[in-house]
Parts: sequence; structure tokens; C-alpha cells
Amino acid sequence: MNILLIEQHELVDNRVLLHDRRAEHLVKILKSREGDTVRVGVIDGAMGRAEIVSLKCRYPFMAELLVEFAGEAPPPLPNIDLLLALPRPIMLRRILSQAAALGVGSVTLVNAGRVEKSFWNAQIMAKGAWREHLLHGLEQGVDTRVPQVELQRRFRPFVEDVLPARVKKYSHSLVAHPDASSGLGAVVPSSPARTLLAIGPEGGWGDFEIKQLRAAGCIPFTMGPRILKVDTAVVALHSRLTFLSEIYESTRAVS
Amino acid sequence: MNILLIEQHELVDNRVLLHDRRAEHLVKILKSREGDTVRVGVIDGAMGRAEIVSLKCRYPFMAELLVEFAGEAPPPLPNIDLLLALPRPIMLRRILSQAAALGVGSVTLVNAGRVEKSFWNAQIMAKGAWREHLLHGLEQGVDTRVPQVELQRRFRPFVEDVLPARVKKYSHSLVAHPDASSGLGAVVPSSPARTLLAIGPEGGWGDFEIKQLRAAGCIPFTMGPRILKVDTAVVALHSRLTFLSEIYESTRAVS
Repeated sequence: MNILLIEQHELVDNRVLLHDRRAEHLVKILKSREGDTVRVGVIDGAMGRAEIVSLKCRYPFMAELLVEFAGEAPPPLPNIDLLLALPRPIMLRRILSQAAALGVGSVTLVNAGRVEKSFWNAQIMAKGAWREHLLHGLEQGVDTRVPQVELQRRFRPFVEDVLPARVKKYSHSLVAHPDASSGLGAVVPSSPARTLLAIGPEGGWGDFEIKQLRAAGCIPFTMGPRILKVDTAVVALHSRLTFLSEIYESTRAVS
Repeated sequence: MNILLIEQHELVDNRVLLHDRRAEHLVKILKSREGDTVRVGVIDGAMGRAEIVSLKCRYPFMAELLVEFAGEAPPPLPNIDLLLALPRPIMLRRILSQAAALGVGSVTLVNAGRVEKSFWNAQIMAKGAWREHLLHGLEQGVDTRVPQVELQRRFRPFVEDVLPARVKKYSHSLVAHPDASSGLGAVVPSSPARTLLAIGPEGGWGDFEIKQLRAAGCIPFTMGPRILKVDTAVVALHSRLTFLSEIYESTRAVS
């Protein structure tokens, strides 16, 4: 936990009282003491510093913080949204957490031929159950902005009726596909303003799905001959995209 | 499993008989049948295709394969070696698997101030216990070359006596460090021939450790303001390095 996140309503007169895992984390992991300062953020809000004015170090743990906001800003948010074939629950947890740590605007989870039906009924798919994994990622990556999560349980209506209009909002809409002939640098030849990145299920998108995604405006690209697990692919591709933006921007700064 | 890996000694007259998890995987996950063809690789050797000539689909599972080698080559191996502060065991497993899938030459695990002593006594640290995780990664990424793993239980003798000579074998030796002022593109201004990438423990290298790594010839660089878990950082940085090579090579091809 590199930033302690609180809800807006928990903040009363710049004070917050914690009774849950956050108080326990201060005691057990960070080994904090009264008088220490920790980094604090309001979920979807400001970042600041808090003094631990009171701390109960035994169960039930309790911490009282006095928060000060000095205009500290969260790190730049990469202009990347994810479109993922719904991964298996254990992998979804890891992906949401890593995506939030790396920074994304939204994650759309869509059905696909190789998505097992049972994944849609997993505990993490209950309304809002995924939020804690996003918050873990924000706590790791030091951010306060919770990515939006959207569920699309039917591939075809989504790709035919929703996606074509949505793609227009992006400078680049891309789909990772091993059979594509172009690499990322070729399909994103200048600094991307806002990118939609589609990544398939374990085993890949089906031929029909790729055709539909292309028809909706997504450009296929290859990331090389190695087949990666979905969670590895999300980190690897997010990383390449943000790096590409950095390179284009530094080149522009020079010229 | 995108390639079935076998040991050289298991191959007799181009035939191999499987009784273990690999036979079970063919039956249960790949739902193979007699007559099907699967991709096969000899560990640290050639890649080929095998016909399943006989398959027992109930416990105890058994598969007999007839292998044919047609000169298929494994994917290019990125010229990257890792130097990692020993991560906690559960994370080490994931890192080894992901590193093997992405492709690395070697992984050196070194002690550091923020490495818990107990990590050195974990089950995975018993001689060769890490190999199965490397093989899982190769099976995922479709490669046969097992990365070398080396243990360095004492930071200072390693960094003072071993590392300076080793660094000379690399075109670039880099250490990820949040306080560094330069990004990866700035410290690797041309196509890297062979890179050593050092990544610290959760909580980061200590000031003295960074000083010692610099003295040994490692150049610090920053990957931005976000703090990533070590496994996320390994994938993100490996990805950026291989992408940088791709970009430099495509630029050279154009000019």
C-alpha cells in the first residue's frame, strides 16, 4: 500500500477514523506510529498527506488521521481503455489490480466463444465485487481514479451496435492478434491521443470474432511469435503503448 | 500449454511415452484424440510436431507420440538477462514463469536489505525446484530454451567482486530506480546488443545498494511515478526493452 485510500464520506473536518484492514495495515505492515505521516488519497478525488494522530496497535485496530491537501496531483493517467474477453476469475482479479496500478480509464469485459459461461457467474462479477481489486491496484500504483468497469454479456450486439460508435472516440482502436502482419509501431505511427486496446481470451479470439472486431473499426496487430497469458499480455501491451507515447513525445520535444 | 516439452532422454527412435501431467493435459485440457498432431520441443533442443499414435483417456493417463523434426526454430530470444532482488516465493514462481514465456537468457537472484531472510529457505529455492516454473513459462511462450538461474546470497561480495566484470559483457546494464531522472529511451539511445536489467525488492533498493550497483556499472533509469509490484515491473520493463529494440531495428531498416 503506497497510498491509503479513503471514501469522500469518511472525511469529516479533514479527519478520518479507520477501523478496518487499513488500520491493520498501518500497524502490521507499515509499522506506523502516532505522529507518522502517510500518503492519503480520496477515491476519485484529491491526494494529500495525513498525520496519524491516534493509533491502537492491537486488535481491534484503530487509526485516526488528520489529512492535509496541498494540491498534490495523482500521476498522469495513460489514455488507454481496455476491451477484454472475460478472463477466468483468478486472472481477472490480477488484471484489474495491475491495470489500475498501471493506469487505465475503463475496462470493458465482453463475452467471446472461448470464454467459459461459468466465468460470468463468478463471485467477482457480482455488482461492484471487482472494486476492491481496482482499489488494491490504485493503492499500489499511487492513484485515486478508479477505472470504470463495464460488462457486455453478448458479443455480437456489443460489437455490431455499440462498438462502431465507440471506436470513433478513439484515435486508435487496436486488437492484439497473432496472425496480424503489422507490429504496434506500424499501426500506431504517431503519438496516440486515446487508445482502445482489445485483448482476447486464453486460446484467442475466433476467426468470426476477429472479423467482427475489424468491421467495427479495430486494427489487428501482432506482438510477436510468443503466446502470452492474458494477464502478461495486458501488462506487456499497456507498457508498449505508454512507452510509444513517451518516445513520440520526446521526439517532438527535440524537433 | 502451447508446446509439449520433453527431455532429450525421453526420446527414443523419435518416439516418446508420457505417463505424467503432460498425458493428462493432452486428454483433459487439449481434449486430444489419437491421430491428432501437437507441437513438441526437446528441452534446450529442437522443436517439431508429434502425432499422438496412442492415447489412454482414463487414469492412469498415457500417451505415445511419434515426433518429427522439420527444422522449426524457436522464436528469437530477447537479449535480456535479469538481476532480481530475491522476491517472495509466490511472486518468484510467477516471475520465473513469465520471464521464460517472454524470453530471457538468465535470472540472477541476489540478496538485498529489503529481502526477507526466510525467502532464501523457501521450497522453491531447493536446488532445481524452480525449473518447473520455467518450463511452464516455456510451454506458454512456445520456447525450448530454459533460462539459467543463479543464486547470489550475499549482496556486497556479488556487487563488488562479480558484477563489475560481468557488466562488461553487456552493451547496457540498467537498474530501475524511481529517483532516477532519465527514462529508458534516454539511457538506451541505440539498439541494445545485450542488456542486464536489475530490479529491486518490494520497497526498493536501499541508497547504499543503488550506490554499489552504480559503482559496478549499472545505470539507473525511471519508469515513471507509478510504483509497480515486482512481477508487473519485470513484464513492463522486459516489454519496453524488446519494443525499443524493435523500434530501433525498424528505423534502421527504413534509413
